[in-house]
Amino acid sequence: MDKLSFITLLLDFYGNLLTEKQRMIMSYHFEEDMSLSEISEELNISRQAVHDIIKRSEKILFQYEDDLKLVDKFLKQRQKLIEVKSILSAMKDDRITKAIDIIDELIEL
Amino acid sequence: MDKLSFITLLLDFYGNLLTEKQRMIMSYHFEEDMSLSEISEELNISRQAVHDIIKRSEKILFQYEDDLKLVDKFLKQRQKLIEVKSILSAMKDDRITKAIDIIDELIEL
Repeated sequence: MDKLSFITLLLDFYGNLLTEKQRMIMSYHFEEDMSLSEISEELNISRQAVHDIIKRSEKILFQYEDDLKLVDKFLKQRQKLIEVKSILSAMKDDRITKAIDIIDELIEL
Repeated sequence: MDKLSFITLLLDFYGNLLTEKQRMIMSYHFEEDMSLSEISEELNISRQAVHDIIKRSEKILFQYEDDLKLVDKFLKQRQKLIEVKSILSAMKDDRITKAIDIIDELIEL
């Protein structure tokens, strides 16, 4: 998994533990793909400050994952769901279709 | 879900964010079912101190759940897995058996 996708997941899981400003800047940068200069202009703070807040926020998010391992657990769980789906997809039955629909919801969570 | 089971889940998810002492006392009380007096003797601190640490730790765990809602998400997810299992259990097929085994692993996680 590339760093961008991983940080987006970390934000999904632990973003609420950041301050409002940290969360906003991380969301601008990683979810809305804004450059440091664009964020700097948008918020009227220096490009260096934006950079520092991003680095600091990344460090906080990685520290939470080191402590809790919940994203890691989530990814392993999703892998197993994909495996179940693959088994069921080879079968034809209306009940299977319903089961796959629920599994799809879980994979998307 | 009763309070004891819920706090045990909170400890599973967020316990690593407590201090070592908080985690130890919570584990004694909620996982090993030790009374406040027993913990007080074991650690050679007052019963009141044990009580205060438990209340403080509960507050921290509930605050993390308020912020992150990961236990709530986990419980909803488990409910859906139980639903999928119930659909599949009504069917007879070796592939289904394999799928159910994986789902059982996920429910246990």
